[in-house]
Formats: sequence, structure tokens, C-alpha cells
Amino acid sequence: MDLNTVIGTVLVFLLVLVAMATGPGGVGIFIHPASMVIVLGGTCAVTMMAFPINDLKPVAKVMMVTAMRKQSTPSEEIDRIVSYANLARKEGLLALENKLQTVDDAFFAKGIQLVIDGFGADTVRDIMELEAEWEKQRHESGKKILEQMGAFAPAFGMIGTLVGLVQMLQDLSDPGMIGMGMATALLTTLYGAMAANMVFLPLAGKLGQVSKQEVLLRNLMIEGIVAIQSGEKPQLIKEKLKGFLAPSARTVVETV
Amino acid sequence: MDLNTVIGTVLVFLLVLVAMATGPGGVGIFIHPASMVIVLGGTCAVTMMAFPINDLKPVAKVMMVTAMRKQSTPSEEIDRIVSYANLARKEGLLALENKLQTVDDAFFAKGIQLVIDGFGADTVRDIMELEAEWEKQRHESGKKILEQMGAFAPAFGMIGTLVGLVQMLQDLSDPGMIGMGMATALLTTLYGAMAANMVFLPLAGKLGQVSKQEVLLRNLMIEGIVAIQSGEKPQLIKEKLKGFLAPSARTVVETV
Amino acid sequence: MDLNTVIGTVLVFLLVLVAMATGPGGVGIFIHPASMVIVLGGTCAVTMMAFPINDLKPVAKVMMVTAMRKQSTPSEEIDRIVSYANLARKEGLLALENKLQTVDDAFFAKGIQLVIDGFGADTVRDIMELEAEWEKQRHESGKKILEQMGAFAPAFGMIGTLVGLVQMLQDLSDPGMIGMGMATALLTTLYGAMAANMVFLPLAGKLGQVSKQEVLLRNLMIEGIVAIQSGEKPQLIKEKLKGFLAPSARTVVETV
Amino acid sequence: MDLNTVIGTVLVFLLVLVAMATGPGGVGIFIHPASMVIVLGGTCAVTMMAFPINDLKPVAKVMMVTAMRKQSTPSEEIDRIVSYANLARKEGLLALENKLQTVDDAFFAKGIQLVIDGFGADTVRDIMELEAEWEKQRHESGKKILEQMGAFAPAFGMIGTLVGLVQMLQDLSDPGMIGMGMATALLTTLYGAMAANMVFLPLAGKLGQVSKQEVLLRNLMIEGIVAIQSGEKPQLIKEKLKGFLAPSARTVVETV
Amino acid sequence: MDLNTVIGTVLVFLLVLVAMATGPGGVGIFIHPASMVIVLGGTCAVTMMAFPINDLKPVAKVMMVTAMRKQSTPSEEIDRIVSYANLARKEGLLALENKLQTVDDAFFAKGIQLVIDGFGADTVRDIMELEAEWEKQRHESGKKILEQMGAFAPAFGMIGTLVGLVQMLQDLSDPGMIGMGMATALLTTLYGAMAANMVFLPLAGKLGQVSKQEVLLRNLMIEGIVAIQSGEKPQLIKEKLKGFLAPSARTVVETV
Repeated sequence: MDLNTVIGTVLVFLLVLVAMATGPGGVGIFIHPASMVIVLGGTCAVTMMAFPINDLKPVAKVMMVTAMRKQSTPSEEIDRIVSYANLARKEGLLALENKLQTVDDAFFAKGIQLVIDGFGADTVRDIMELEAEWEKQRHESGKKILEQMGAFAPAFGMIGTLVGLVQMLQDLSDPGMIGMGMATALLTTLYGAMAANMVFLPLAGKLGQVSKQEVLLRNLMIEGIVAIQSGEKPQLIKEKLKGFLAPSARTVVETV
Repeated sequence: MDLNTVIGTVLVFLLVLVAMATGPGGVGIFIHPASMVIVLGGTCAVTMMAFPINDLKPVAKVMMVTAMRKQSTPSEEIDRIVSYANLARKEGLLALENKLQTVDDAFFAKGIQLVIDGFGADTVRDIMELEAEWEKQRHESGKKILEQMGAFAPAFGMIGTLVGLVQMLQDLSDPGMIGMGMATALLTTLYGAMAANMVFLPLAGKLGQVSKQEVLLRNLMIEGIVAIQSGEKPQLIKEKLKGFLAPSARTVVETV
Repeated sequence: MDLNTVIGTVLVFLLVLVAMATGPGGVGIFIHPASMVIVLGGTCAVTMMAFPINDLKPVAKVMMVTAMRKQSTPSEEIDRIVSYANLARKEGLLALENKLQTVDDAFFAKGIQLVIDGFGADTVRDIMELEAEWEKQRHESGKKILEQMGAFAPAFGMIGTLVGLVQMLQDLSDPGMIGMGMATALLTTLYGAMAANMVFLPLAGKLGQVSKQEVLLRNLMIEGIVAIQSGEKPQLIKEKLKGFLAPSARTVVETV
Repeated sequence: MDLNTVIGTVLVFLLVLVAMATGPGGVGIFIHPASMVIVLGGTCAVTMMAFPINDLKPVAKVMMVTAMRKQSTPSEEIDRIVSYANLARKEGLLALENKLQTVDDAFFAKGIQLVIDGFGADTVRDIMELEAEWEKQRHESGKKILEQMGAFAPAFGMIGTLVGLVQMLQDLSDPGMIGMGMATALLTTLYGAMAANMVFLPLAGKLGQVSKQEVLLRNLMIEGIVAIQSGEKPQLIKEKLKGFLAPSARTVVETV
Repeated sequence: MDLNTVIGTVLVFLLVLVAMATGPGGVGIFIHPASMVIVLGGTCAVTMMAFPINDLKPVAKVMMVTAMRKQSTPSEEIDRIVSYANLARKEGLLALENKLQTVDDAFFAKGIQLVIDGFGADTVRDIMELEAEWEKQRHESGKKILEQMGAFAPAFGMIGTLVGLVQMLQDLSDPGMIGMGMATALLTTLYGAMAANMVFLPLAGKLGQVSKQEVLLRNLMIEGIVAIQSGEKPQLIKEKLKGFLAPSARTVVETV
């Protein structure tokens, strides 16, 4: 799992919790399960309305995988491809089969399998590009769903607050009750703002960044696998793939 | 009808109703027909102003059809096309005529009819692509109208609240009345937010998703029908059409 | 004039008027000429600042024409073109001259006049396409101006409310006066929201829709007039022009 | 200077001033120099932060020139070009030199000078198109800066109001002071809204419109000057340039 | 460091500080470390969530460099290139090596080094264009991150205010405490608005402008270095590169 996403998530929740805890009343006055249900439940329910179930299922999976798996860097991928190219040149393409079990990236594994199975270069490229295109669409779909949830959450926060305000305004005789009613009504707006700005919108941004990086990695892998198949020299493959690297990252590979 | 849209709709209204019912005063204090009329009536009236009647009529129909009809999956369509191709190869194109009565998709039926009537491949493709283009435009038009309604509803909620506030402010002598007046005034804002976020905007999103899926299905059908006409082997047609499937869905067809 | 725009306009104003009339104080408390002047006058004044007078003049005219004239449907236009094509084939192109007086559409009349005057097909097409392009730009310009007014009106509503609030806050000694001052201050916000959502924005949307439809009609007319000039068979012209129709509208022409 | 921009500016300020003057307290209660400094000063300061000084200098000049100079109409430019073409055909290109002193448009003057100096048609066109491109970029840059100021001004209005509110809330013992403090706090929001909607945003819109018109004029001038150079007949030049005119403006030139 | 960014930054903070200092209570009432931590900490934490660490690191560096380094003008770059071209023509390309130590722009130095190392013109151009492309992407990435922070800061201001309001509303018995609680609650909104409008958004705008200017400079350098390599006459190089200058800047170079 990507470390700075974890740290960021822990940090932001900690910050808000401390702010709640240090005030009069403690964290307890901010916990109101019914308000949480209306904001989160409402957001999830209208997301169900807006997206076909076929879109929601793979997206949930994609989000989990994205959050859990540590994305490899382009330099690491180049190193792996070069070591596979070395193996293929020394012991033949079939020698790659033993290595396949250790590959945890399904896309890379599928590409190597296609090479082992003896498909032509164009077929390998076509199949993998289509695969990469579908993967990109799943990521974009997931980003859009998270952005929608980031828009619906504050709306349900507001709906909850309006419901609370209308209820509170029925009886203005007890000033103490007014404050409590108002505080409870405001909690849904707070939950909506927190859900959008501390969960949905940062995750949507993250998914977008991961997707951009993934597209680069996928293109790098496709070029690399096709080059392995054609039996190019490992050193040449490394030179070619370095075009995918930012200038600052190039020296890192150079010295490997 | 698409199940998760139904569940989502029921769920979100249930959530808000429960939130209203459990507060002091019950659901009753949230029912104010005059406020509903101003928000929903106003939204519909300005939508009538903004769109020609020719646009509104088909859109209402499209929305109904979209909501009612269960969209078939690409895999199901491929299975249907392959079974038709089998029939056509065994008993000739005219044998398809008997099957036409069982087809509930007007687009697919029209394509098969064109094939039976003996039109050339280019003509069939041209006519069906034009048909698909018009269908797409109707969907986009419907999405735009729903998005406009999602923008106008909160505006009329605000207009209603302002009208209510001005009326309430005429007489501030009775504090009890102030609360009631304020509560009533806020109801239109609540209705506007509910109409936009629990009906119009999720449905606009849904229509956009359905439309995207429909475009894929239409292209798949066009390729399939043209392939049936040209008498290609069913197995070959299946292979060709699998390019329209997401990788995860391909195995499903494979095993059929 | 387009009937559903009229009905929509009447309906939305009626709804708001009834909401005002049924409250305490009646419609009277919502009438404040000075507030109307600041919202509408301010909106018009900054629109004058932002757009050159050359743009505002034709736009006002375009808007009037658009609102007043009932747009013909594509089917009606096809019928007219076919009847003209019949006449031209039977009695020659000059026979169209007598019919010109009955044409109330300046664009169509100009096209027929060019044909009668004996200009070549390319010249007729060039001149009419340029004419259609200018018309489209006028429509787009008008839409943009209305959208700007829809953005400025709520801004001046807010400016008026702020002015009123600052004045009211000078003297908080009489609670009765506070309510009245606040109510008056809120009226400009109400006027701004009404002007934007009940006039400017729906009309901008309408102009956009009319423009889209007009582009289709203009292209249909250009094809039709060029076809008349080249002496094509009326039946063939009808078939050709039916490509401009939505599928559902085609049968209507078919049976004519 | 463009008359309707002047009238619009005067009108909108007059309207707001009258609204202020007719309320209790007169205009005086709306004048608070410190609040003006924070809104306008803050807006200018962050604009200085956001744009390099090289961009701000020419833009200020462009804005002045744009506001001061009366833009000529395309018809006037065509008349001028035709009269120059007449002169050049009768007395030779060098005869244009005497006329140059009377030209107040630097772009047009530069073009004529290039022709007199004997540069080739392609060189003249290249140089003038580059010049027109830079001018367009300056206009767009100016529009963007004005739009940024229109976004920053309300933000500083809000910052000022928040500062004022925090100060006012320190002492709630004297109700009279609360009103005054609140009024003063609201003044910055009012100034921000006025600066954005009565100055920056309308001027940004105006600059955009002027720029669009200027591009048309520049293209017209380039075609005209190249035509003068090639010694085309004045009547032919006029016909050619009329393609730049809106249909309604064409008859005006025709009768000249 | 760019002078007007410094002046703008100092000015805007001074303005707000003076506004705070001159009110009752002085600057002290605006200093609330816990509120600062929640707004700035929250903004940074969600930015960490949304962007991979690989993106955040170079961006921070880019922002520092951008703010610190004074960008050279195109005219200065042309002068430098011309002087290098003179040197190369007189003493050969290798003579440039001595000058390299004095170059503080890594991009320009790399280009000259490639020329000295004897790479072909196409290779030099390819390598430098790729380098310029990566630099542009880093700038765009930095701009996007700053804009995101400008959107998250007010959101955390609002979250902080809601937390404060809910805490304050628990006890409305002491009116004096209400004012203090409200003031403290509003401080986070104030901090959020200040962070967004006085730091993040102006810096994002600045980075966008610097990037635009940098792209121009990079293209100018690439053309210049390739021209030096090909041994073109310095006077010709100057003429060629002047196409990158705004017309007003051209005379400055001319007279050099």
C-alpha cells in the first residue's frame, strides 16, 4: 500500500479528532449515528441509482487493488524487463515460464505468457494494448464515481441539516434545546464536508494520478515484452525503455 | 427494470423519510403541498420554456423505456447473434423471420428485417448507424434536460424560501410564529435539494451511463448483423464480437 | 410564437404570484420598484458595458424574431421544397417567382431568388452557407448575452441586499423595523433569482435549442434549393432530404 | 471611447449610488476607506503575485487603448482601403506615404509602410499576421487578468468581512455596537461584489468582445493591404472584402 | 527572485495585518495555533493522500527554484546565444567548454554540452525537446497540486468552523462565551480563505505563467543551440530568434 496515502489519511483524521476532543464536550458530541447513516447511506444510494451495477463492482475491486498494491516505479520495471531479457537470451523464451509464478502483476504475467505461447509480435501488442485500454477505462470510471460521491456527500449533508432545522424550529420555547437542535442539524453538514474532502475527493485525485502512472507503466511493459520476444540485446532494451523515465530517474537506472 | 436503480431510489427515500419520522413532529411537518407545487411546478415550467416541445416528448418516452427495460449485457447479445447466425447458415436468412416476433429490441429487429429484405451490406450498415446516431442524440438530449432540471430545482427552492422569509419578516411580534414561518420557508429549499440530488441528477447520471453502454451494444449489433448477412461462420462471429467485451466478461462467453 | 414557451412562462409566473398572494401581506409586500430598478437596471447597464452596441442591437432583434415566429418543422420544409421542385420541373425555374411573395422565411426566399437569378450551384451554396454561418453566430452571441445577464442578475440581487442590510443595521432599536428592513433587503436577492431562473437562463437555453434546430433546417434548405436548381426529380429530393429527419418523423413525410 | 461602455458604467454606478443615498444614513455610511483599501489593495497585490510584471505592463496599456479608442467598423475600414487602392492605382504606391501621417491605427500604418518599402507580398503577410497574433495574445492575457481580479475581489471582500466579524464578536455587550460592527464588516463583501460585477467582469467581457472584433478587422486589413500591393482593381477589392461583413452591414457599403 | 511576486506577497499580508491590528483586540485575537494546524495540516494531509510521493517531491523543488530564480527574458537569451555563436565561429565549438561553468541554467548547459560532445543536430534536438517536455509536465503537475490545495484549504476552513460551531452550541447560557466561541469558529474559515487566496491560488497562477514563458524560452534555446552547432552566422541567428520576441521587445535587441 502506498505509504504517503496511508500517512495522509491517518494524519487528517487525527487532526480533526484532536480538534473535536480538545473542545468542550469532547469527541462524544460529534458522534451521531443517525446523521452518519443519512449522509453516507444517501450518498451510496444515489450512487447506486446513477451507475449500473456492472460498473460499480469492478470499480470497488479496482479501488481496493489500487489502494493495497504498491505501484512499482518505471525504473524497477525496466530492471525486471532487462533481467527477463537476459534470461530469455541465455536459456530461451521457455525459461521465462518458471519466473511467471513470482510475478504478482497480472498484466505483465499475461504478456509473458503470450510470448511463451508463441503468438506473433503484432498479436501480443494488440491484445496487451486492448487490455491496457480496458484497465484505463476502469480507472476513469472509478475516478468519476468517486467524484460523484464527493459531490453528493455535501448535498446530503445539507439535506440532513435542513431536516434538522425544520424539526428544531417547531419549538423555540427552550433556548437550551435550540442550541442542541442546531448542533445536531449541523453535524450532517460536517459529515458531508468530511466525507467529500477527507475521503472521496482525495481518493478520486489519487486514482487519477495512479491511472496516469499506470498508463506509462503499461506502455513501458508492452514495449519491453515485445522487445524480449524479438530477442533484442538487454542493453539495447534498457536504452530504449529509458525514454519512459523522467530525466532525474535516468541516472538511477544507469548505475544499476 | 434495472434492479440497483430501484433499490437505490427506494433506499434514499426511505433514509430521508426515517430521518423525518424519528424527529419531533414526525413526517407531517415536512408535508407542505404548496411548497412542493412551487418547486416542482416551477422547475417543470422553466424546462418547458427552455426546450421545444419536440424535444421534451421523445425524451420522456426515452426515459421511461430506459428505466423500465432491463438492458441486455454484451455477452447476452453475442449469444443471440451467434444463435441467429447458426439458424441463418442452416436454414437461410428467411428463417430469421419467424424469430423476429420474439425480439423486443426494435433496433435489432429492424436490422434483421433489413437483412431479410435483401438490402446490401453497406445500406444495412448506413441505415443502422444513422438510427444509432439518432438514438444517441435522444439520450444526450434527455441527459441535458435532466441536468437542467437538477439546476433549476434548487433555484426554485431558494426562490420559495425567499418568498417565505419576506412574508415571515412582516410580523416578528410572535416568536412562536417566527419558528413556524422559518420552518415553512426552509421546506422549499429542502424540496429543491431533494428533487435535484435524489431524482434529477442521479437519473441524468444513469441516462449517461445507459447511453454509453447502449452505444457499445449498438455497434456490436451492427457488426453482428452485417456478419450474419455475409454468412460468416458463427464461431468466427463470436471471436470477432468478443473484442467488444471487457476482459473479465470474455471467459463468461467462452464457456457458453 | 412557440406555444410551450408561452405556457411555461405564464405558468412559472403564475405559480410564484400565487405563492406570494396566499401568504400574509399579499402580493403587495413583494412590490418594491426601487429594488426592481437596481437589479434589472444594474444587469442591463453592465451588459451594455460588456458588449459592443453592434452586438446588442441585432441580438435583441434575433430574440424577438425567435420568440415570435413559429419555427417550421423539418417535415414541413421538405414538403415545401418538394412542391417547389414540382412547380419548377413543370413550369420552369422562373415560375417560382410568383411563389416568393408568400414565403415569410427570408433565408429560403433569398435562396430561391438566387436560383431564379441564374447563379451557379456553387455560388448559391457558398452564399447561403455564409448566410447560415452568420445567423448561427448571431444566435450564439444572443445566447451568450442572455447567459451573462443570468449571471449578473443574482450578483446585483446580492449587491442590493448588502446595501439594504448595511442601512438596516444602522438602527437596531426597533425590532419591528428590523424585520421590515430585512424583508426589503431580501427582495433584491429574490428579484435577482427570479430574473435569472425565470427569464434569462430559460431563454438562453431556448435560444440554444432553436439555434440547433435552425442549423438543421438551414442545411436542409440549402440541399433542397441546390437540388431544385439542378432539376432533380421531386421524389428523389424527398428521399434525399429525409436523412435530415429523426426516424420517428420519417413516416409522417412518407404518408404525405 | 466606446459610447455604450461609458453610458453603462455611469448608469450602474448611478443606480447603486441612488440606492445608497435614498436609504437611512445616506451615502456616508457606505464610505469606509480602510475597507476599500483591503479589497482593492488585496486584489491588486495577489494579481501582482500571480502575473509576471512583463505581462501586467502591456496589459494596462492595452486596456487603456481599448477603452479610449473608438474601434472602427469593418465598413469604415473597407472604405479606407478602397480609397487607398484608388490612390495607389492613380499615383503609384509611393503616393500612400503622404496619407500615412493621418492614420491613427499603428497596425494599418505599419502594413502600408511595408508596402511602400517594397517588401514582397508573402513577407508583408507574414509580418502582419505575426503582429496580429501578438496583439491577440495581449488581449487574451488582459482578459485573463481581469477575470482573475473578478475572482479575487469577492474573496478579499469575504476575508475583510471575516476579519470584521471576529473583531465585532469580541464584545457583544452593546447591541448598538453590534449593528455598526456588522454593517462595517459587510461593507468589504459589498465592495468585493461591486468591484467584480461592476468593473472587472464587465471589462473582461468587453475586452473579449473587442478582441474578437479586432481579429476580424486585422484579417480584413491584411487582405486589403496585400490586395493594394498587388494592384488589384478597387472595385474588386471591395467585393472581396465584403465577405468579412455581416449580411446586414453589406448594403451600407454597397451604397457608398 | 521575481520582484513583483515578493512585493505582492508582502503587500497583501501587510494589508490584512493592518486591518487586523487597527480593530479592537489587535492582531492577538486572530492568532489561534490550533485553528492554523487544522486548516494547513488538513490541506497538506489530503494533498499527500491525493498525489504520489514521487510527484510531490520534484514539485516542491520546482516551486522553490521557480520562486528563487530570476527568469531571464527572451532578449537576454538571444544576446547570450549570439555571443556563444560568435565565440564558436571564431574559436571552434570546443571553446564553449570554458564558458559552461558560468551558465546557471542546467537546460542550456546540457544543450551546449551535447554540442561539444559532437552529437548530431537531430539527436541534440530530440534530447532537448524531451527534456523540455518533462520540465513542462513538472510545472503543470505543480500547478495542479497548488490548485488542489487552493480548493482544499477553504474546505478545511469550513470543517473547522463547523466543529467550532457544534462545540459552541452545547452551551448558550453565557452570551459572552457565544461571541468568543463564534469568533474562534470563524477563524478557520478566515485562515482557509487566506491560505487559498493569498498563497495557493496566486502561486498556482504564477507557476502557470512562468511555465508558459519557460516553454517559449526552451524553444528559443533549442533553435539557438542547433543554429550554433550548424555554424550559422551570428547575425542570421539573431534575426531568426527575434521571431520569438513580442514586437515591442524587438527594438531592444535591435539596438544591442
